[in-house]
Amino acid sequence: FGTCCRQLCDYPKNTNVHISFPAVCFVWQTAMIILFGIFIRYNEESDPHWVEHKKANNLSDLDNDFYFRYPSFQDVHVMIFIGFGFLMTFLKRYSFGAVGFNFLIAAFGIQWALLMQGWFHSLDAEGKIRIGVENLINADFCVASCLIAYGAVLGKVSNVQLLVLTLFGVTLFAVDEYIIVSVIHARDAGGSMSIHTFGAYYGLCISWMLYRPNLNQSSRLQGSVYHSDVFAMIGTLFLWMFWPSFNSAISDHGDGQHRAVINTYLALASTVLTCMAISSLFNKHGKLDMVHIQNSTLAGGVAVGTAAEFMLMPYGALIVGFCCGIISTLGYIYLTPFMEKHLKIQDTCGIHNLHAMPGLIGGIVGAITAASASKSVYGEEGLINTFDFEGKFKDVVPTQQGGYQAAGLCVALCFGVGGGILVGCILRLPIWGDPADDNCFNDEAYWELPEDEEAASPVLHYNNHMQNKDV
Amino acid sequence: FGTCCRQLCDYPKNTNVHISFPAVCFVWQTAMIILFGIFIRYNEESDPHWVEHKKANNLSDLDNDFYFRYPSFQDVHVMIFIGFGFLMTFLKRYSFGAVGFNFLIAAFGIQWALLMQGWFHSLDAEGKIRIGVENLINADFCVASCLIAYGAVLGKVSNVQLLVLTLFGVTLFAVDEYIIVSVIHARDAGGSMSIHTFGAYYGLCISWMLYRPNLNQSSRLQGSVYHSDVFAMIGTLFLWMFWPSFNSAISDHGDGQHRAVINTYLALASTVLTCMAISSLFNKHGKLDMVHIQNSTLAGGVAVGTAAEFMLMPYGALIVGFCCGIISTLGYIYLTPFMEKHLKIQDTCGIHNLHAMPGLIGGIVGAITAASASKSVYGEEGLINTFDFEGKFKDVVPTQQGGYQAAGLCVALCFGVGGGILVGCILRLPIWGDPADDNCFNDEAYWELPEDEEAASPVLHYNNHMQNKDV
Amino acid sequence: FGTCCRQLCDYPKNTNVHISFPAVCFVWQTAMIILFGIFIRYNEESDPHWVEHKKANNLSDLDNDFYFRYPSFQDVHVMIFIGFGFLMTFLKRYSFGAVGFNFLIAAFGIQWALLMQGWFHSLDAEGKIRIGVENLINADFCVASCLIAYGAVLGKVSNVQLLVLTLFGVTLFAVDEYIIVSVIHARDAGGSMSIHTFGAYYGLCISWMLYRPNLNQSSRLQGSVYHSDVFAMIGTLFLWMFWPSFNSAISDHGDGQHRAVINTYLALASTVLTCMAISSLFNKHGKLDMVHIQNSTLAGGVAVGTAAEFMLMPYGALIVGFCCGIISTLGYIYLTPFMEKHLKIQDTCGIHNLHAMPGLIGGIVGAITAASASKSVYGEEGLINTFDFEGKFKDVVPTQQGGYQAAGLCVALCFGVGGGILVGCILRLPIWGDPADDNCFNDEAYWELPEDEEAASPVLHYNNHMQNKDV
Repeated sequence: FGTCCRQLCDYPKNTNVHISFPAVCFVWQTAMIILFGIFIRYNEESDPHWVEHKKANNLSDLDNDFYFRYPSFQDVHVMIFIGFGFLMTFLKRYSFGAVGFNFLIAAFGIQWALLMQGWFHSLDAEGKIRIGVENLINADFCVASCLIAYGAVLGKVSNVQLLVLTLFGVTLFAVDEYIIVSVIHARDAGGSMSIHTFGAYYGLCISWMLYRPNLNQSSRLQGSVYHSDVFAMIGTLFLWMFWPSFNSAISDHGDGQHRAVINTYLALASTVLTCMAISSLFNKHGKLDMVHIQNSTLAGGVAVGTAAEFMLMPYGALIVGFCCGIISTLGYIYLTPFMEKHLKIQDTCGIHNLHAMPGLIGGIVGAITAASASKSVYGEEGLINTFDFEGKFKDVVPTQQGGYQAAGLCVALCFGVGGGILVGCILRLPIWGDPADDNCFNDEAYWELPEDEEAASPVLHYNNHMQNKDV
Repeated sequence: FGTCCRQLCDYPKNTNVHISFPAVCFVWQTAMIILFGIFIRYNEESDPHWVEHKKANNLSDLDNDFYFRYPSFQDVHVMIFIGFGFLMTFLKRYSFGAVGFNFLIAAFGIQWALLMQGWFHSLDAEGKIRIGVENLINADFCVASCLIAYGAVLGKVSNVQLLVLTLFGVTLFAVDEYIIVSVIHARDAGGSMSIHTFGAYYGLCISWMLYRPNLNQSSRLQGSVYHSDVFAMIGTLFLWMFWPSFNSAISDHGDGQHRAVINTYLALASTVLTCMAISSLFNKHGKLDMVHIQNSTLAGGVAVGTAAEFMLMPYGALIVGFCCGIISTLGYIYLTPFMEKHLKIQDTCGIHNLHAMPGLIGGIVGAITAASASKSVYGEEGLINTFDFEGKFKDVVPTQQGGYQAAGLCVALCFGVGGGILVGCILRLPIWGDPADDNCFNDEAYWELPEDEEAASPVLHYNNHMQNKDV
Repeated sequence: FGTCCRQLCDYPKNTNVHISFPAVCFVWQTAMIILFGIFIRYNEESDPHWVEHKKANNLSDLDNDFYFRYPSFQDVHVMIFIGFGFLMTFLKRYSFGAVGFNFLIAAFGIQWALLMQGWFHSLDAEGKIRIGVENLINADFCVASCLIAYGAVLGKVSNVQLLVLTLFGVTLFAVDEYIIVSVIHARDAGGSMSIHTFGAYYGLCISWMLYRPNLNQSSRLQGSVYHSDVFAMIGTLFLWMFWPSFNSAISDHGDGQHRAVINTYLALASTVLTCMAISSLFNKHGKLDMVHIQNSTLAGGVAVGTAAEFMLMPYGALIVGFCCGIISTLGYIYLTPFMEKHLKIQDTCGIHNLHAMPGLIGGIVGAITAASASKSVYGEEGLINTFDFEGKFKDVVPTQQGGYQAAGLCVALCFGVGGGILVGCILRLPIWGDPADDNCFNDEAYWELPEDEEAASPVLHYNNHMQNKDV
């Protein structure tokens, strides 16, 4: 009882972000405005001079990249805000935090990503970053890695910590992606390596650094209720449906985008069946578990991220999905409890099963598919076109490319682990307003809850009742 | 009390799909991989050789069918997974089954549909099926008919039965569609006949074969709660909004797609008003009924499915919607209870009112519109283009085409009724793990529910309370 | 107790729309059919003769405006039906009314808008209105202004009143838009003036005319519950994500659409951070308030509506979003209570903060951006192209255009205020079946609720309990 009291007294101090959160928001947003003022301009296709450029080059309006990319961009946008946001609403009392902080991370992250990625990729001779729709897609991609990391620490950190996680996450991602794509010349259209592997290990290492031995004090809040599971399915399904757009959004125009969609569509379909089969098989009454359906059905999309635009072949996509559905679901059943108990990694959403393992598989599948590419399958021009064997990479052969892909995977892994440990150290400082162990997974810490919520919520009723009994 | 006890004891045996469900999933998914390995390849536009083909034919990237069809494909995809899935979440305690089994059916069905439809439509000289984005749309369409059928048996069958329903449903659909579209040469862009009429009668006949005289034992679970009705509206609205994409997704490029969108948009708008009017008029206090709003507002989209790409004229679309809103809502008020009582057809979602009747109307509207087509309205080339009067059908005249349309409707009806009876017989075998009469509409049979669900759910509280009182 | 009794007795009389609602629906829908029959035809691009037109003009299928506009149209469509509908579901017991009446208003409004806007903009020499996808987008836009107005009177009016509000709202909008865009020649792609400013003041003035001094009798229903707030976030996020499509949907092909997307994307991202910062800063425990997150995060999209297609510059968009996030959130904290108390304007959803103020800001930003346009920034052709300095407006210079923009804002304001007062007078007539003061924000008045809702809803339980105690 004394402990309980003390914690209740500590509570306002612990989670006090009254000054720090608004301060960080205002300062960082002001910094964004200044940096955008200095660096960011419209690119050729979003500038009013385009009408002259169009005439000079005998182009049509449709040649504007906008019409190739915008529908995919909007699908990716939905995945970021609705998909990731609602996927995390499964906790009975952390839906506001799931969807609200997801919104915060993404809204800040896309701005910072436009700058970071711009400095690496789009800086022109005048020192300006020229942006268009492809940059917006890439910014969304970059933010995805931070949202994956959020999944590991969901409910255990403050909004200020999340902003710090995002600031460093985006920075690391931009460097990581630059090395993988531009220096090493690995292909990674759907980001199995740069987004999923990096993001997942980044989040897992942060969670490891922030290990809470007494987290079971919040165990009453660490489950779902019926309707929160249905909300989470909104996230799952939008991610599942639009994943083909994710993996094809920045692929080459024409056959590249087309093929990436087909492969992703098939891999995801296959995953659903094996995920459900394993979920039922390993349940003592043969029942399905919503946690698996919400998460593991997506593993196939992660695992074809790198190879989606390659000649993976339709049956190859099905095989990848088949395996990932099994591995990811078994991960939830065996690996997540093991990691929590023995490795001190508390992974709220099980991102190790949904992003880390499938991401690694995706990197390996990409390396093998690239290494086994041949002119007979791709055609001479097709091979050059698909793997971008141009400029200083014009003499690369597929087996070499396979090696580059493997190197890319290692880089992603190193950045994830290294970055996660570094940022985890920073987030351990006692200044960020994170919640007490018995107050994790609880929206009450950072959100005004509806006034008569106690009356409205049988869960809290029940919990209060239980607590009274305990006392 | 004795009966109750016995049923509780029977319960684990009844719904035991511990072995059968995973076995079916694994075996069928493995079969898919093998068949895809043998048959499925990328088509010209999703193959890396396309870059050469493009140059040879002086095409631009935008000529890839991907850019004509992909936005519509994604809309259709959302209708299949979110639309149908959430539409069925209205039951107070069957939301997991609604959205989860919908997911399962669709994920399996699209794979089998790619094969079945491919064998009939896309088999090339080498015996390979060449797939592209249009095949993905058609696979989604095919699955829609099975999801419609699911609506009739919602809550009364096991997941294994649903997979069997899908296997046969997709097979029958592919044959049915081949006869209607390729043999008879009826036009059916939005599938009023091949998707809705077929799917609805298929489901209704299965439900008839599986008639449960004692289903009222589950009547406590056969209604909605406040939030489950709001979830269902997510499904309704996504279906309603994207129906123009559904009816135009495989129409001819250019004016065909454009016109199909306009007609569907108008028919649906008109339906909303008459549906709400009838719902209010036939309620004793003039109140609206959520069941009608969730379902009957969609009837107009079904009924313009066939004629959407024809010259139905904007006012014609409004008239079709006007009538369907009335008929469908009256169906819910009078016909569904009548069918349950006198025809022994238990139709959980009322698919007879949403798909069967509007589908028949759609077929008839299509036949009349086709028969009354003329060169003065369509133009000479427009007529050929719209009705595909080419090749061996180049001498067909509109009145003949009207006859073909009517014949197509009869074929759809026969396949639906015949197939439903056949598959219903198979599903009556006592090996499929279907729930007991007092356990229908209950997620508990096939899903791990959140642990403190009993405490969290006032409904169950209430029901338990009532049951205790009864005992 | 006596008062309570009397009100309960009055209740069936008060909200009786048993005859009037179906009658209005049927008569108006029939009128739509007749008017569509007389006036509405397909335009060139949705007519079967297009195939001939295409050949004659050497066009490709892709030149059909359908492929430029359809993806944006579908995004706008989602905003109208899911976005606005779910945004208003936040009330604990008015979710059916929010999403259902939103559906009703929009379905009727789009038909009437096609006619009204057609008469002003698309009437051809034969007296026919030729419609295509751009008309569908404009109809959705028009309806948006009525849905904004609905936000002010949410829960306080009957469905018949809403139809009247829509009939007049659409009519006023069409005149208002004609004057702004065609007569004054102000540019307003995203409708900061014509949609948001007009719609908001229209709704606020209606709410002012319908002032209810005893509305606190419904105060028990005037808040949210946990899950209704999560539902509202679905609306918020779909509005937020698709707002770039809204502001770019009818912009010029090519760079215009492209630029409008970038500006809107950035303005919205910036708004999220300042909105959350202010929400936390002005809360006594630094907690975030869901009302602000649901609404004020969208203010940036409203405020760049006019200037989105201009050279606002990326940092300019961020600055606009920055300011609007602050102003809109402060509006919820200070202005809404002030307006209710002192100005007798009861604004259920706070549309003054989300639409009125940001709309005014948007008009002003548009005027300034237009006035400061120059050939050096836009290029000679770009300037003509962006501001449409053609035909009788070919001699307009940017400073003049700035004046036109300001004039457009004034027109929108006048139409909103004047129209609102007029329609408010009409809606005060005691024939519309509006709810009693103690029955506002209650779905029970117009919807059949699930039967065991009382048992299912702890809120009502609680309220009943409280009421019993009071008595």
